[in-house]
Amino acid sequence: MELGVGGSNPPCCTKKMSKEKNLKPSKELPLGFVDRQEQELLIRDFIISNIKEVMIKYGFQYLETPSFEYTDSIGKFLPDKERPDEGIFSFKDEKKWLSLRYDLTAPLARYVAKNYLEIPKPFKRYQLGRVWRNEKPGPGRFREFLQFDADYVGTKNLQADAELCILLADTLKKCGLDKNEFVIKVSNRKCFFGLLDWLKITNEKQRIAITRAVDKYDRIGIEGVASLLGKGRKDKSGDFTKGVDLNKKQIEDITEYIKDNSFYDDERDNLKGGARFAPLGKWDDLSPLYIEGIKELGEIFAYTELSEFKDQIVYSPTLVRGIEYYTGTIFEVNLLFKVKNQKGQEIEFGSVGGGGRYDNLIKRFGNLDVPCTGVSFGIDRLVFALMQKKDFEIKVVRPVVICVFDKSMNKKYVGILNKLRMSNISSEIYPGEGKLKKQMEYANKIGSPAVILYGDDEIKAGKATLKNLKSGKETSVAIESLSDEIKKLL
Amino acid sequence: MELGVGGSNPPCCTKKMSKEKNLKPSKELPLGFVDRQEQELLIRDFIISNIKEVMIKYGFQYLETPSFEYTDSIGKFLPDKERPDEGIFSFKDEKKWLSLRYDLTAPLARYVAKNYLEIPKPFKRYQLGRVWRNEKPGPGRFREFLQFDADYVGTKNLQADAELCILLADTLKKCGLDKNEFVIKVSNRKCFFGLLDWLKITNEKQRIAITRAVDKYDRIGIEGVASLLGKGRKDKSGDFTKGVDLNKKQIEDITEYIKDNSFYDDERDNLKGGARFAPLGKWDDLSPLYIEGIKELGEIFAYTELSEFKDQIVYSPTLVRGIEYYTGTIFEVNLLFKVKNQKGQEIEFGSVGGGGRYDNLIKRFGNLDVPCTGVSFGIDRLVFALMQKKDFEIKVVRPVVICVFDKSMNKKYVGILNKLRMSNISSEIYPGEGKLKKQMEYANKIGSPAVILYGDDEIKAGKATLKNLKSGKETSVAIESLSDEIKKLL
Repeated sequence: MELGVGGSNPPCCTKKMSKEKNLKPSKELPLGFVDRQEQELLIRDFIISNIKEVMIKYGFQYLETPSFEYTDSIGKFLPDKERPDEGIFSFKDEKKWLSLRYDLTAPLARYVAKNYLEIPKPFKRYQLGRVWRNEKPGPGRFREFLQFDADYVGTKNLQADAELCILLADTLKKCGLDKNEFVIKVSNRKCFFGLLDWLKITNEKQRIAITRAVDKYDRIGIEGVASLLGKGRKDKSGDFTKGVDLNKKQIEDITEYIKDNSFYDDERDNLKGGARFAPLGKWDDLSPLYIEGIKELGEIFAYTELSEFKDQIVYSPTLVRGIEYYTGTIFEVNLLFKVKNQKGQEIEFGSVGGGGRYDNLIKRFGNLDVPCTGVSFGIDRLVFALMQKKDFEIKVVRPVVICVFDKSMNKKYVGILNKLRMSNISSEIYPGEGKLKKQMEYANKIGSPAVILYGDDEIKAGKATLKNLKSGKETSVAIESLSDEIKKLL
Repeated sequence: MELGVGGSNPPCCTKKMSKEKNLKPSKELPLGFVDRQEQELLIRDFIISNIKEVMIKYGFQYLETPSFEYTDSIGKFLPDKERPDEGIFSFKDEKKWLSLRYDLTAPLARYVAKNYLEIPKPFKRYQLGRVWRNEKPGPGRFREFLQFDADYVGTKNLQADAELCILLADTLKKCGLDKNEFVIKVSNRKCFFGLLDWLKITNEKQRIAITRAVDKYDRIGIEGVASLLGKGRKDKSGDFTKGVDLNKKQIEDITEYIKDNSFYDDERDNLKGGARFAPLGKWDDLSPLYIEGIKELGEIFAYTELSEFKDQIVYSPTLVRGIEYYTGTIFEVNLLFKVKNQKGQEIEFGSVGGGGRYDNLIKRFGNLDVPCTGVSFGIDRLVFALMQKKDFEIKVVRPVVICVFDKSMNKKYVGILNKLRMSNISSEIYPGEGKLKKQMEYANKIGSPAVILYGDDEIKAGKATLKNLKSGKETSVAIESLSDEIKKLL
């Protein structure tokens, strides 16, 4: 086993180097990684526990695969980047390559192939876990994410796809979102690929490039898509993206398809009571693949129509999604409230989750025919959005601080501490070494709700002074009543 | 940015390779990594939520640092291995090296150095997170762990060390352990190093080698330690470990110290009501460092004596621990009930947590004098032990399965499903494509408590058949009463 790859040691991790006096280690984080603070973490815990409850209610089973896999096991199904060597973190381990997983789906496929005889069929599993992408770091671009996935393994039944859409909606509702604050967009790859069949565009690379251009419709509009399908497009910054170079007729047909079908996106707010799934008759006989996709969508919507979230689950023909392994249904959750970036600018927030059907992924491992469909939540993104919801609040608990007048009186302070903790009140004896002034500064700094003063005078009187740090008010309280008095403050 | 280190791509992650038909990807996991199943994960969630509650009660603040750090930021303070290149997973990122963290303490030190002006002083933080060690994989040796840490940053106050011992005990109690099922051993590095001062052993390498030999006392006994302090020791398998090569007088003094002091370990069961901290007078004037260590221990025990866990927190002079950065107090939690390995053999389980004082770690980053003390739980180990406790059980919830007789009747099945889920009952319509026999097999395989049969006869009668899968008993139940009837089964 080598440390890192290539047999050379990281230059700064040897003892000798770290002891050299003039070489101070970096205090910074590598780009694309962040420290997370309490409020964000508590919201995250809240979201996770809600998701887990929904998973149990829907009958999914908990599983966890490790962070590392053999590189060949998980393959590489990320959207292609400009440079082919981007994507995943990998190590050489004796003879084979290991990689940090880039999603939770590829490891699930490996798990299923390994344990195929033992698992129930179908197999419904959920997993929470971190994934890593070794992308070019930049502002707002992270290289570590927390994801939550739910998948159906081993079923072609489209009820599974429909259930995943309902589950997405149910989870957001449980996290405190109102039904008018999100939409689940549903589409089917077969429809768009059916259009490409009809246009006689069969080259795989070209099909993917077209799909990606259409995927940008929400952001760059119909003109932008048309440019990308043609010669190329110059964005606001002046950067030029080369186009797919289709002919005029092909571009017109694709943009017409988008325009005809995009009604459902643009008029989101009018969806209630309107058609959630109504493919335009005009396109009905496009190609066998298109018809198959539309038929599948019909089956899914027949199921979601029976759910309390029928108005939130809508057909969105321009939805295509970037990941390569999807074979049929695709879906995505979008939030409908405004989200700002760290500079305070309102942003096009994009999706907080999505997924689709991947019927061929497990075939890689041998002759297993295991159709699958799954969904993934981007937990960090969901937290980021929830933190901006005006009516959403999470309680951060800070300890009551018992001040230290004289260390030899420690027994008295501990007596109070034990009583408070017995009543499950977050509390501590001042843990530092400063005098009273410093202790008060500390209590204010940590956002403590109150301090308890128990000095000579108080001990003589047999009562402690409870100082409310919000109001500044001091009250004299008998030791036995402290817990009750504090609970009134919290 | 390179994929991996050294600029070469992992050979199997390119599209071309994965599409070659005869090269099936591996279904196996790399050594040292495991898949975790539901029961284990639910116990883990239970432990984590208990720990978090204790953290809040004790006034700690939640923080999360990322998985990656600059290699020079976190240094390398793991116990030395046979080969110096073992230890951590590292990557080269453009110009600098990145590493996956090997513990949560080194990243905390980086965080404090970076945010020193903003944090409260002292700063009490807790963190849950995975850590990675790139050790030689082998049976039962993992390369990925889940840890939970709590630390006091910026205080020399030994009350902090004492609180951590109490917190360890309180956490185990909250997780369902009885007070007689664990012990918190406490020691101080200054005591043992004071002994070495007195023996005039000043060479740093030799001191560490001696410390490690003594650390093995519990496992290899006094004879084993004596061999390791002398020429060396041959173990049962015939492997020879080279010794420290001390002279006879030095070896005698060290083994005498251990024998005199080990009383508290050997007679664990007699500790109740006995001395939890009573250094033998004979060693009192050993060296200034020893006296300082004993004085500090005295202060800690004066505090723990006031706690409900006073009998669980005991002095253990032979406790030394392997990590290099500890400067004073050290402590460790040991479980007192029997634990078996996967082969069913009873094993010396070792600690499930521990920690100590590291007053100099943050100095690496500059002229900051930030004394710290902290504790770490090995969550996976705690889960493994709890799973073996006879009286410990966790409830695994499995869905009630609504069988599908005829897909055109879906509306009826969904009606039942919505009612059950409204009552928060884990439930699903059979998600596969098989006939009734297959559906029953599926329900049994997933451990479902019951199936609901709602075929033609039932629909006519207006009542569903509820089949209890444990007893095999079938009952005819009105749709409105299904939830109540199912709740009786669960």
